Parts: sequence; C-alpha cells; structure tokens
Amino acid sequence: MYLEPVLIDGEWRQSESPAGQFQAVDPATKAESKELYPVSGNDEVERACRAAGEAVAALRVVAPESIARFLEDYAAKIEDRSEALVDVAARETGLPASPRLRQVELPRTVNQLRQGAAAARDRSWCHATIDTKVNIRSKYGPLGGAVVVFGPNNFPFAFNSIAGGDFVAAIAAGNPVIGKANTGHPGTSKMLAGLALDAAAAAGLPHAMIQLIYRTPPDVGLRLVSHTGVAATGFTGSKEAGLRLKEAADKAGKPIYLEMSSTNPVFLLPGALAERLPAIARELYDSCALGAGQFCTRPGITVVLEGAQAEAFLAEAAAHFDTGIPGTLLGPGAPPRIAEGIGALVAHGASIVAGGREIDGPRYSFSNTLLRASGDAFLSHPHALQTEAFGTVNLVIVARDADQMIAIAANLEGNLTGSIYSDTSGGDDELYARVEAVLRQSVGRLLNDKMPTGVAVTPAMNHGGPFPATGHPGFTAVGIPASLMRFAALHCYDNVRPHRLPPELADKNPTGRMWRLVDGEWSQQDAAG
Amino acid sequence: MYLEPVLIDGEWRQSESPAGQFQAVDPATKAESKELYPVSGNDEVERACRAAGEAVAALRVVAPESIARFLEDYAAKIEDRSEALVDVAARETGLPASPRLRQVELPRTVNQLRQGAAAARDRSWCHATIDTKVNIRSKYGPLGGAVVVFGPNNFPFAFNSIAGGDFVAAIAAGNPVIGKANTGHPGTSKMLAGLALDAAAAAGLPHAMIQLIYRTPPDVGLRLVSHTGVAATGFTGSKEAGLRLKEAADKAGKPIYLEMSSTNPVFLLPGALAERLPAIARELYDSCALGAGQFCTRPGITVVLEGAQAEAFLAEAAAHFDTGIPGTLLGPGAPPRIAEGIGALVAHGASIVAGGREIDGPRYSFSNTLLRASGDAFLSHPHALQTEAFGTVNLVIVARDADQMIAIAANLEGNLTGSIYSDTSGGDDELYARVEAVLRQSVGRLLNDKMPTGVAVTPAMNHGGPFPATGHPGFTAVGIPASLMRFAALHCYDNVRPHRLPPELADKNPTGRMWRLVDGEWSQQDAAG
Repeated sequence: MYLEPVLIDGEWRQSESPAGQFQAVDPATKAESKELYPVSGNDEVERACRAAGEAVAALRVVAPESIARFLEDYAAKIEDRSEALVDVAARETGLPASPRLRQVELPRTVNQLRQGAAAARDRSWCHATIDTKVNIRSKYGPLGGAVVVFGPNNFPFAFNSIAGGDFVAAIAAGNPVIGKANTGHPGTSKMLAGLALDAAAAAGLPHAMIQLIYRTPPDVGLRLVSHTGVAATGFTGSKEAGLRLKEAADKAGKPIYLEMSSTNPVFLLPGALAERLPAIARELYDSCALGAGQFCTRPGITVVLEGAQAEAFLAEAAAHFDTGIPGTLLGPGAPPRIAEGIGALVAHGASIVAGGREIDGPRYSFSNTLLRASGDAFLSHPHALQTEAFGTVNLVIVARDADQMIAIAANLEGNLTGSIYSDTSGGDDELYARVEAVLRQSVGRLLNDKMPTGVAVTPAMNHGGPFPATGHPGFTAVGIPASLMRFAALHCYDNVRPHRLPPELADKNPTGRMWRLVDGEWSQQDAAG
Repeated sequence: MYLEPVLIDGEWRQSESPAGQFQAVDPATKAESKELYPVSGNDEVERACRAAGEAVAALRVVAPESIARFLEDYAAKIEDRSEALVDVAARETGLPASPRLRQVELPRTVNQLRQGAAAARDRSWCHATIDTKVNIRSKYGPLGGAVVVFGPNNFPFAFNSIAGGDFVAAIAAGNPVIGKANTGHPGTSKMLAGLALDAAAAAGLPHAMIQLIYRTPPDVGLRLVSHTGVAATGFTGSKEAGLRLKEAADKAGKPIYLEMSSTNPVFLLPGALAERLPAIARELYDSCALGAGQFCTRPGITVVLEGAQAEAFLAEAAAHFDTGIPGTLLGPGAPPRIAEGIGALVAHGASIVAGGREIDGPRYSFSNTLLRASGDAFLSHPHALQTEAFGTVNLVIVARDADQMIAIAANLEGNLTGSIYSDTSGGDDELYARVEAVLRQSVGRLLNDKMPTGVAVTPAMNHGGPFPATGHPGFTAVGIPASLMRFAALHCYDNVRPHRLPPELADKNPTGRMWRLVDGEWSQQDAAG
C-alpha cells in the first residue's frame, strides 16, 4: 500500500508509522481518489518542529531579498502549472474550473504571493521605529519558531496552507511554515508544496522553510499548536475545531489567529428597497450562491422592516433561490452540516421560504435555501438564530420597527462583515446612523450598498472581526502588509551598538525607500543618529 | 463600620453588599490603615460593566480633543496634588518619597498622560489606511467595551490602574476603563480616581469613563475579564494570578495583555569584565536594588564564564549586596515570597553568596541576596532556576565555556529584557553574535552595556516579550503610541459613503498633520479620493 509522501525538512518522505490514512473525494462524482494520504502521528510532528527550529536559526542570515525572490518564483511556478493545478483542485473541491479557479482564485493567489514579495523587499511592514535621542530602536521581526497554517476547505489556492494568505504572511515576515493541508484537497496541496519546495531551494531558503503534512489525529493537532518549536498558528475553518485548537494554544501562551464563523448580516433600509428592491434581491442571491455559498463572507442574515416591502423582497429573493441551480458542495460532510444548521434555525422559530433539502444525485448538493423569522423570534433566541449554515442559505429577519432593527443589530455576535443598504437621497440616513452605531462594534468590515463576498487584497482590507468571527479584533487575515503583523514579534534594541543593529534600524535607510517612524515622524530618509 | 466608597458610573458610592473588606498596610511600620476598603461582589461588577456599556455608546460622539484635554487636565491635577499623592503612596508602598515617588515616578506618570493626550490629538496612532482606487479604508478604533486594568503593587503611580500606562493607552484609544486598584495602595488609587473623575467631568466625558473598585473575590475577577461588557484587559502582576485571568479571558475570546514575570538575564562577556569589572558589578547591584528589587525589569540572572574573573566578579558583587542597605518591601507578602523563590533556587543547585534571609524589624525587608549556580546545574533544572524572587536577588550562573553560555541562553524562558555587556574594542564580538542570535528570540528588549531597569517612555520602547513574560509577543505596555494598539479593534469601511466616514478616513486630512497610509505610502496630505 503506497501512501503519498509528506514534506519534512526539505524532503518528500514516506510517513513514518502513520496514524492512519485517508482519500480525497471528488464532490462532483462522490468518487474517492486513488491516492492514499497518511495521517501524521506525533513523531512526524516532532520531526517537523525540530527541522523548523533549524530553519529559524538559518533564517537569521537570509536577506529579505531571498524571501521576496522565493515568493515571486513560487508565483511564477504556479502560473506555469496552472492547468494541472486547476484540474486537481476542481476534482478535489467540486469548484468550477472556470471562471472560479482559473480566472479568479489562482490569479488572486499569485497576486498575494507577489504582494508578499513586495512587502518583504520593501520592509516598511516591520514598522521600524527609531528614537535617536535615547538610541532606542525597534521593529517587528520573525517569531523565532514555526508558524503552523491550517487551511480551509473552500479556497484550495487562496487560503491553502502552503500557498494562501496565511502562508504568504508568515513567510514574508520571515518564519518557516508547517502547513497542515486541508483534507479536502490534499493533492492540490501536495502539488503546490512541490512547487514551493523547488522555489525555496532556488532562493537558498533553509530546507525546512516549507513543510507539509495532511492530517493528524486530534490530540496531535493540539500538541502541534502548543509545541515549543511552534510560535504561532493561523487557522481558517470550523468554530468547533478552531476553539479546540485555541484552547491548547492559549494554554501554551502561543498566539493563534482564527477565522471561524460569520453570518455577515445585511441590513436593507426601507428607502433602498423602495428604490431598487429587484436589484438588491438579485445581489443578495448572487452573493449567497457564490462558491455554492461556501464563503466566509457569504451573507447569512438579512434584516428588513416588516410590511408589504418585506413581503415583496422575500418573494423576489425566493424566486432567485428557487430558480438558481444549486452548486456542488465541497464534500460529503457539507449537506448534513447545512441540514443541521437549517434545523437549528427552524427549531428556533425560522420558517423555510425556499429550498431546505439535500439534493440526491451524483454530486454533493443542497437546495438553495431562504428562511424567514420575526424579529421577536430572533430576540428570543439570538444565539441559535445565528447558527451558520455553510451553503447557499440566508435567513431574513423581519423586524417589527426601527427600534427592533437596532435591537437585532445589538444582539449580533462578532462578524467579519456587516452591510447596510440605504437609499441614495438621504432618506435612510437617520436609520443608517442608528444601525451603524451598533453594527460597527461587532464587525470587522462595514459595507455600504455592497454584498460582502469578494475580499479585495488591498492594504486597507480587514478580513477579521470580533470573537467568535476570529480570535482577536486587531488583526486581519487578508491585506498586505497588515496580515504579516500576526506572525511577528516586537524586537527592541536599547543602546545596541550601530554595527550590531539589523539594517532596518541602522541610521542609513537600507533601501532608500523604506518607511520608518523616526523620532515620531514617518520618513524615508536616513536617521540622524 | 464605614467602608471607603467605590467609583461606579460617575459617583462615589458605598459598596452594595460588599463581599468583604481589607486594609492597606504601611510597609515601613507594618501598621494597618484606619481606612477600610470594600471587596466588590458580582452585583457591583455587573453595575460597572453596564455603566461602561453606556459610556461606550456615549463615546461615539466624543471628539479626540476631549479625550486629550481630559488627559492633560488630569496630569495637571496630579501635579497640583503631588505632595498629598506622594505622602499616601509612600505610606502605602514603603517606596521612598524622594527621589523615587516625587522626582521620578510622578513626573513619569504625568508625562505618560501628556503623551497619551498628544497621541489622541494627533490621531496617527490609529493607522488610518486609505486605498483610494477600491475605496476601502480602515483604522483602529475603540474596542466597543470596557478595558479592565489590574495595576501592580510596585508602581503606585506609573502603572496604577487608574493613572498608569495601561490606563492612558486604553483611554487614549477611546475606551472606558474599569480600574481594579492594587490592594497594596487603595488610598493612592482612590485619590487618583477622584482627580480623574473631576477632569473627566470637566472634559465632558461619559460618566462611566473611569470607574474604580479595589478588590474582588477570585471568581468575580474571572467573571469580570470575561464579561460581555468588557472588551479587553490589561494586567500587571504575578504569573499565578495572570494565568488564572488569562484562562478565563481566553475562553471568552477577550484579549488580555499580561505582564507577569521576567528574570531579565544579563550576559557579561569576558572582555567587558576584563575592562571594567568593578563598574559592572556596581551597575548590577544598583539595578538589582532599585525599588528594593521590585521592578519587572530587575536583572534576576547574570551569566559569566567560569574562571578567576568570574570569582572576582562574584566577590565584587557580593560586597555590594552585603553592604547595601536593604530597601523596604511592598507588603507583608513580599518577604515570604522572596524566601520561597530563593528556596526554589537553592533546592535546584544554587548556593547563597550573600544575604538570603528575612530581616526582622519594624519594616518588611529581606537581605540583598546574591546566589551562584553552575551552568550544569542550570541546564539540569532550567525552569526551576528561572524562578523569580521579587526583591534584590540575583543568581549568577557560571558557564563552563562559551558553548555552555549559548546553551544557557537557549534555555531561557520569555523575558522582557536581555542585556549583553561586551568589551569596547571588538574582542567579544564573535561571542556577542552567538549569544545575541539565541537571546534575541526570547526577549522583548535587547540591551548593550546597560542594565534593564529604567524603562524610557518613548515610541521605540518595548516593554513586552514572549510568553510567559507577557501573553503576546507583538505588543508593548510602555511606549506611546504603540501601547494603544492593545486596546483597539481594526475597523474597515468598504464603499462607505464619504459623509459617513470617520474624519480620520475622509479624503481631507482632519488635522493637516495626521500620518495616514494612503495608497501604500505614509502621508500627511489629503487623499485624492
């Protein structure tokens, strides 16, 4: 029996004493892959952590330029192999090869890698701060241990543990990565890791800069995030798994950045619906259906005011949900999890307006589902009615009046996003102000007249938000250079002699362009030390 | 029986159904205060959190200028009442009124308040980031809940829960504070809170901007840091208490910033000792004895290479420890805790070179204590030999050779600081490089030829470090504006209409001077939106 190899310390190796094995599943056919992948036990995790420790030491003499070249070369290699990557990712995830994987996600992924390269080369991300009078200088630097990245099932490229946003951020900040592939797309991850390994070797990075395992038993995962050789973890996935890992990492005093769940509420104010109800209903459906509804930023809750307008909106939206073709879900676990989520909503007062059932057939699918609940029901069971159903599912909450709409906003849990649609002539502005005052505190990104799916990779992006959307409200998982800050430690140099300072903190600006906070002002000039 | 009042929702009130009472103790006479202070139960904590929630809402329309004026006015009020404050603080802590409290700590405290005011007014701290092409904008803003501050016993002003660094950072970032006074100096805290209350009212801040309780039963403290109305906690104190609070806050998904323990290792390289052994021995003693050794940054471990030089250094240092007059410790718990710490060191191979015993007498005191241990002993029991003894106590580790010195460095736990002394002609540079490579990763602030006590309040300062020195390696408790980032959430605005943006994110620069990251470059100009 041949098991696919793991990537440890710069080499593809047969897993030693694997704790089990698994296969990928093609969601479009429910067929299992012929490849078998190993479940890594504790010895393997120990070996990876030890090797990462050596990489940490070796990285001290690696220039930012080498890291930048690695990221760029890796991006080019991904483009060179894009057809093969798209093929395997489509087979493992059921996501459409085109446009989703080929024209959208793969270009975004290489763009992230290149932005990471630019950040590493530019060095401004490290917030070099120089106080010349007291000769105290500080900057952010690598954490001094491996970063473990757990990638989610829904973005085989852009959030892949070995190519996605967390990976780029950790590497660009100068840390080695131990990738824990999502078990939904091990073949995609393996192919990416192969390209990364070649690029890392060409750039002269340490052997263990990039390591890959596919799965661990739960207890080994907990040991991994709390291992002395691991400095931080990036996790994107379910709340259940995230909270287990968080508990272990917290106990060990290790930062863990989690992106766990979000219902991404959308508030539709009456003037907006009066102006453009059909367009908004269409936008909502399109956003809900993107990627078969399996986006972290998919709107899960819509809030409207009761009345004829609400009924008209529900009818219009229901028509889209009814007639839209349900997408293929990521794996066998998806339909029952959606059914479970919908069951929780219905059990607490929601009723189904469209869809609501698993679709039998050759592929994993679930009908597009629209639900409704009264504001009273929501306020009676605010927690249960924020249950996430990870598919094309939306719960419309019909508020009795503006006050109840505000109360609903006040009972929202932490979310990645919150959207408010308002009219264009200012008629909704008073209500907008009231909703925004409450909503602002519970979301990472606030949108106007726009659905939350489609996360631009741009410096001002915040793909984060208060718990339980993430584990810390001050960090973003998307947006470079801000996302690097998660994987960096603040290093201060007090009275350190000039020749011993890192170049970023020397009087001379090492690039001539790097932004540094010199004596309280941002500057690209040399410091007068 | 009269209990001193607590400050809740803008009023000094008798504690309702207090869970107990306590008195302050004058460490110089062991006399208890005539004042009785209440232990606050759960109802009081609930009331404070509810009031803080109202303050959060009210703060939405409070301009940064009001917060700045409050901080400045508060600083002026502290200066006006400095004699009374110094009197009560000296009586409650045993710290010398002069120079320590009057000439050093109080000026530092008002300086911090004024730096906080400048940061609030300047607004550059919030890292406004504007991407004009995609119209996505973000900045750091208040957390949307109260910040709880637990102040330590050793800085009655500069780290006071109601006047110190965490307080300034939380307020300047726009959050209300619930101060949990250190029970060692409740009278000082009460007097400060009175001044703060007056200044807050004059500045038009919400009633519950500043609240003060003195003590809670342990379970109520755990509920406080995990309360829905609390957004984050700043804690400075013992590792034992810090870890308990951390567990509760982590479970609730609330950031908690801890400053818990640090042995602040000092490496003395042979060239430095050859050049200036007596001066270094003097510096070490002075740094250890500052504040009776009760500084977070007091050097607790010194590492030297074995040989005649090490013996000469130990003899020279021992003379200082023997002849120096032991300071007055902060309270009745201090001597037994120091004895316990020394006991743990001795039990694991350290031997006492000077001091080592509690001093009987009218005040709380412990003899200045110097210990030594071999590098072998340290490497056999690295954890036990890093036990903190919070007083004028230093453990000199005598390493067999350079390799063992590196091994010792590699076994250090996370520390606030690490110092390396080397010769001035470059003879130590090779060894310096080896030590630094290892030490850098485990300390927040790396020093050359300088003892770690004396934490400058300057932007580049890092008073932080890896766990267990603190709870997160990316944040500092001292240094403005960086310390504000602990108490801020990242708020993104995506496609939000111009008139609804916070002023900091409008195209027009609201102050004409604020630094913003506009289209990837730091700028004080208006954005071309």
